Amino acid sequence: MKPAIDHARVWHELETLATFSDAAAPAVTRVVFTDVDMRARAFIKSLCGDAGLALREDAVGNTFARLVGSDSDLPAVATGSHMDAIPNAGRFDGTVGVVGGLEAIRAISRAGVRPRRSIELVLFTAEEPTRFGIGCLGSRLLAGALDDSAGSRLRGPDGESLDDTRARAGFDGSLADVQLKGGAYSAFVELHIEQGPLLERKGIDLGVVTAIAAPAGLRISIEGEGGHAGAMLMPDRHDAFLAGAEIALAVERAARGSGSIDTVGTVGVCEVFPGAVNSVPSRARLEVDVRDINGERRDAVVKQIASACDEVAASRGVKVQREMVNADPPARCAPEVVAALERAAAGRGLKWESMISRAYHDSLFMSRVAPTAMLFIPCRAGVSHRPDEYASPEWIANGIAVLADALISLSE
Amino acid sequence: MKPAIDHARVWHELETLATFSDAAAPAVTRVVFTDVDMRARAFIKSLCGDAGLALREDAVGNTFARLVGSDSDLPAVATGSHMDAIPNAGRFDGTVGVVGGLEAIRAISRAGVRPRRSIELVLFTAEEPTRFGIGCLGSRLLAGALDDSAGSRLRGPDGESLDDTRARAGFDGSLADVQLKGGAYSAFVELHIEQGPLLERKGIDLGVVTAIAAPAGLRISIEGEGGHAGAMLMPDRHDAFLAGAEIALAVERAARGSGSIDTVGTVGVCEVFPGAVNSVPSRARLEVDVRDINGERRDAVVKQIASACDEVAASRGVKVQREMVNADPPARCAPEVVAALERAAAGRGLKWESMISRAYHDSLFMSRVAPTAMLFIPCRAGVSHRPDEYASPEWIANGIAVLADALISLSE
Repeated sequence: MKPAIDHARVWHELETLATFSDAAAPAVTRVVFTDVDMRARAFIKSLCGDAGLALREDAVGNTFARLVGSDSDLPAVATGSHMDAIPNAGRFDGTVGVVGGLEAIRAISRAGVRPRRSIELVLFTAEEPTRFGIGCLGSRLLAGALDDSAGSRLRGPDGESLDDTRARAGFDGSLADVQLKGGAYSAFVELHIEQGPLLERKGIDLGVVTAIAAPAGLRISIEGEGGHAGAMLMPDRHDAFLAGAEIALAVERAARGSGSIDTVGTVGVCEVFPGAVNSVPSRARLEVDVRDINGERRDAVVKQIASACDEVAASRGVKVQREMVNADPPARCAPEVVAALERAAAGRGLKWESMISRAYHDSLFMSRVAPTAMLFIPCRAGVSHRPDEYASPEWIANGIAVLADALISLSE
Repeated sequence: MKPAIDHARVWHELETLATFSDAAAPAVTRVVFTDVDMRARAFIKSLCGDAGLALREDAVGNTFARLVGSDSDLPAVATGSHMDAIPNAGRFDGTVGVVGGLEAIRAISRAGVRPRRSIELVLFTAEEPTRFGIGCLGSRLLAGALDDSAGSRLRGPDGESLDDTRARAGFDGSLADVQLKGGAYSAFVELHIEQGPLLERKGIDLGVVTAIAAPAGLRISIEGEGGHAGAMLMPDRHDAFLAGAEIALAVERAARGSGSIDTVGTVGVCEVFPGAVNSVPSRARLEVDVRDINGERRDAVVKQIASACDEVAASRGVKVQREMVNADPPARCAPEVVAALERAAAGRGLKWESMISRAYHDSLFMSRVAPTAMLFIPCRAGVSHRPDEYASPEWIANGIAVLADALISLSE
C-alpha cells in the first residue's frame, strides 16, 4: 500500500512557514538565526514532535528528526532541505523539501509501514549565503568541507562572528562535532523546486537529478580614479564603473561561449562609489557567480573572466583585484538512489525525466558523505528567489508521494 | 592702491569651514540644510557681521551680505559661490568663492576704498544636487528658472519636500519671492577652483572663464527579469544590470565620439536589484550626466544615448525608461566682466588664460539675470569632489586679489 499524502495539510504548513518572514507577503525574507528563522525552526520542531520523531540539533543548528526503524543500528536514510530565504524571496525554495520530507515520513507512519532503517528529516542551517557569505554552511560542516576555524572567521554584515551569532541562537557546542561520522546515512534524497522552467515547459511532473552544478564565486574590486563629472576630460578618465561594466559583459560572453547550455555566469552585485551623478566613479565592486556541472569547463570560464579583468585593468588604467570566494566541485548523484526515485515515479504513474540541477543545494555536500540524489518538482515559469515563486499543491504532493515511496524502498 | 589679501586668515577660515562636516577629515560632507550646513552658514554670517556687511536671506536660504556703496541706488556688483559639499568631497569647491569673496570685500574696505556701487557677497543654497536631485537650486530660483511648485515637488531621499525641509531650517517665505528683480546686479563674478588639471599643468595662475558648460541629466530605469543565478539558462535571461552595463558603455562612446574634447558623459550612479550574488538582476537604475559648452552637440550625444537605450531594450528584451531631469543651455560669459578680470590679472602681474568651465556653477543661472563671468584658480592634479581636493594658499590669494581689483573696477 502506498502512503497517502495530505496535500491540504502540507499547503497549510507552507503558508504558516511563509508568515515567519521579515518581508511583507508574498515576499519572504528569512535570514539564518534571525528571530523569524528561530520561530520557523520552532514551528517545524513542534510538528516533528507531534509526529513522534526523535529530535537532535548540532552545534551549527542543523536539526535532525528521526523515525526510528526496526533495525536502528543500520545507517539511516535521510531527506531534508533548508528553510532560510534570501531577501525578498519566495515561499517554496527549500521549504518544500522540509515540510515535504516531514509529510513523507508522516505518511509512511500513517500507512503503517515500519521501515527497517531509520528515516531522518534533516533541516540544514544557512543554505543561502546571505548572512555569512558562503552557501550551504550547515551541510558543508556535516561533510567536513569547512574546518571549525569558520566559527571565528566567518562574519555577518554586522561584523559578528558565526560563533557569537550561533551562541546567541542557543547553539554553542564545538563546530568540530558537526561533521557526520562515516556511514551515518545509507542514502540522502532532497526534494526541491526546480528553480528553472524546464519541467513546467515540457509538462513533466518530476525531475530526477543526476548531477548537481557547483558555483565558483568571485569578488572583484576595481579601483580607478574619481573626479568631477564635468571637469574631468574623457581621455583623462579611469572610470571604475565602466571597467566593471566591461567585466560584467565579459562574464556573460565567457558563460555563453563555453560550448554548453549548462554553463551560467552572473554578476548579481554591482556597487559604485561614490555613487553621485556628478562624480566619476572611483571604485566599483562586483560579485560574480559561475556554475556548471562540469568543473573543468566552469573553471575555464573563470579563467577567461580573470583574463578579461587583466585586459580591462590594462586598457583602462585601473586596478582590478579578484578574490575567489569558493569553487566547489560539482557532484554526480548516486545511481542506486537515482534508480529508487525513478522506480517510485514510475510506480505512481507520473512523468519524470532525468535532469541536472543548475542551482546548488545542500545535496552537493551530502553527496560527499552519503549516496545522494535529488527530486525536482516544477515551479511556475522557472521563477525562484522572487516573491512570485510558485509550485502548485498538486506538484508538491506528487513530489512528496514519490519521495515517500523512495524512502521506503531505500530503507528496506 | 591695490587691496592687500590676508592669506593666513582666509586659510584659517577655510579650515574652520571644513570642520562643519558629516565625514571624517580630510573628507567633507555638507548637504544643504543638515546641521553642519546650518552651522557653516552661521559661521559665515558671523564673519560677514564682523566685516560690517548688511545681511539678507531669502526663502530658500540664499544669503546676501552687502558692502553699501556711495551710490547705493545703482545696481550692485556681486560675487559669491556655494558651501554645500557632496558626500566625501573636499574643502575648496565653492568655499573658495564664499570665503574669497568675503575677503575681497574686506580687503577693499581695509584699503579705504569706498565703492560707488554696492558690492554684495552671495551665498547660494544647494549648488549640489545631493539632497533634492537638481543642481543650482538657489541660483535657479534667483534666475526664475524654476517655478515655486518646486517647493512641494522636489523631495529629498527621506521623502520630505523642499518646502518642509527649508521650513525646518527656518526659511519659510514664498519661493516666488526668491527671483531677483530685473537689473538687481550690474555684474556677477564667481571665484572657483578649476576642478580640472589645465591651469596647474600649464603653470598658469588664473583662468578667465568665457563660457560655462551645462549638463543634461538623465535617469534611466531598466526592468528585466530576475531569477536564480544557477537555474536560469543564459539564453533565457533578460538581465537588467547587463543592459545597464551596455548603456553605460554607450554613454562613454557617445561622449568620446562627439568630435570635441569639451563633451563629457558620465554614469555616476548604478544601482542593481535585488543585489544578491545568486540572483539574476531584475532591475537597475543609472544616473547619467552629459555636458558640453555647445548645447546642440550635447543634445546630439543625449539623443545617441536614447537610441542606445532603445537598442539595448530590444536586443535584451528589457524595458528601459528614460527621464530627463534637466537640460539647461550652456552660457557665454559677459565680455565686459571678462575684460575687467583680464585687466585685473594683468595689473597684478599674473599669468592668465581664457578657458571654459566644464563644471557647472551658479554662474550658469546668474548669467541669465546679470552680466557674469568666472575666475578660476588651479587645483592640484585637477582633483575635485574628493577628499584630496587641494588649492594652495598662494593660488587662492592670487584669485582673491584679482577678484578684489575687478570688483572695484566693476563698481566704479
